[in-house]
Amino acid sequence: MFAARLKADAARVETRLRAEIARYGDLPVVAAMDHACQGGKGLRGFLVMESARLHDIPEDQAILPACAIEAVHAYSLIHDDLPAMDDDDLRRGRPTVHVKWDEATAILAGDALQTLAFGLLADPALPPARAVALSHDMAQAAGAGGMVLGQALDIAAETAAAPLDLDQITALQAGKTGALIGWAACAGAVLAGTDATPLRSYAAALGLAFQIADDILDVEGCADKTGKRLRKDADAGKATFVSLLGLDGARARAAELVTQAEAALDPYGDRAQVLKEAARFAIARDR
Amino acid sequence: MFAARLKADAARVETRLRAEIARYGDLPVVAAMDHACQGGKGLRGFLVMESARLHDIPEDQAILPACAIEAVHAYSLIHDDLPAMDDDDLRRGRPTVHVKWDEATAILAGDALQTLAFGLLADPALPPARAVALSHDMAQAAGAGGMVLGQALDIAAETAAAPLDLDQITALQAGKTGALIGWAACAGAVLAGTDATPLRSYAAALGLAFQIADDILDVEGCADKTGKRLRKDADAGKATFVSLLGLDGARARAAELVTQAEAALDPYGDRAQVLKEAARFAIARDR
Repeated sequence: MFAARLKADAARVETRLRAEIARYGDLPVVAAMDHACQGGKGLRGFLVMESARLHDIPEDQAILPACAIEAVHAYSLIHDDLPAMDDDDLRRGRPTVHVKWDEATAILAGDALQTLAFGLLADPALPPARAVALSHDMAQAAGAGGMVLGQALDIAAETAAAPLDLDQITALQAGKTGALIGWAACAGAVLAGTDATPLRSYAAALGLAFQIADDILDVEGCADKTGKRLRKDADAGKATFVSLLGLDGARARAAELVTQAEAALDPYGDRAQVLKEAARFAIARDR
Repeated sequence: MFAARLKADAARVETRLRAEIARYGDLPVVAAMDHACQGGKGLRGFLVMESARLHDIPEDQAILPACAIEAVHAYSLIHDDLPAMDDDDLRRGRPTVHVKWDEATAILAGDALQTLAFGLLADPALPPARAVALSHDMAQAAGAGGMVLGQALDIAAETAAAPLDLDQITALQAGKTGALIGWAACAGAVLAGTDATPLRSYAAALGLAFQIADDILDVEGCADKTGKRLRKDADAGKATFVSLLGLDGARARAAELVTQAEAALDPYGDRAQVLKEAARFAIARDR
């Protein structure tokens, strides 16, 4: 159920987002924006769509914040991949934007995707008070108190005297990936003007489980027969949940978080089955 | 009158914007955001404040979009100054962000300033429908159909076979600087929920006059006794309004635009004196 819905939502969101981008014509910067919005798993957009379904929000409203969160995610990846940041040349199996075009185009494409995201949240199809709430929360989640804070902590960690401890790495993750996941999961409740606490708890546990699973995959990938996967973070001497908790400890912690995530959704009863499945998927997936 | 009001508004807007930034703590990325929001002329923020006064909008509302536009302006300057873009090491007489910190911090500080701008527009102090309208228009002005478009056209011009013609350079300017100036001048009318057409016409003429004056200063600066100013654009072989119209032609065109800008404000009568003065200032200023 979850896998099929993720796939369907991701396709729908990507199609709409690309249509929004296509309005801007055919300059390289627009092609770069389009490139960056293709081929993702679409988890964040799915979370918006599913939390909207949970609150009986019409799909033509839900698709706007779903596209917005994927646009913010894409912008963050473009800038993250820049030579001055992580310097990655591959993303989703394709060349990164600054490799396929150039750095200036990558900077501008990321900038314009962030702008587009807030533009989508200001669409007249959304009730104004809900639109403002989504935009306000997005600014918290994406800005210097959220995602950018996480990125900045990550940069600071690289030159820190000692590796981060568990609290520090948890704070880093909460900003870097947790804040946007939280925004996405809460979007349906915000659109409905109702209490987002259960979804916020769900997303906090889900986001952390997701990051721990990432760290586990980073190590386990190396033991693969293919031997192709790089232990990028581990080899860079960065603290990870695995380096701090051990492989078994990290697995146990992730499982515990999934149980927490599922329990947080109890107020929604059976309607939350797909979101619960999403949490179980987080620790069972391949990369 | 204009000079005193510009100074007072600029100081008030800068103080409030820096207070908003200070909430994010003391990481380097936050210090970089703060650095980039200091020492500007504050013309865009002033335009918001003055157009709000024209519509009897309370100052505690007007200050939010005024801070937002200065945050967007600051973000665009940080990213513009990056080595992959204009590669400037001085801005407002001080080292640029990537020189004082590093490129990664500059990218993130710019990103977070854009986020902050939209966050300010989603402040609960603004009526939701007005906040959404401001945010919607900001996304148009700052994104791939506005400022980023102008930047992208500027980049494309550098590798173009022929220098830009007058229509092309006008389109470039309309995006690169005109769109934000237009947003700022219209903000008061948008906050009042009233017709922004006169202010839009005013700003279109003002923005273009401002750019022509910039091009004139770029050339005339060279003839100064100091001889210190670089004819940066002219020497780079870029088309400018001066290269296309000649020095006298450019001066005449700028004067004509100022007359247009003033005439556009006639519906406001005497209340628009300060904005008219601002237009005259645009072509009389030093850099």
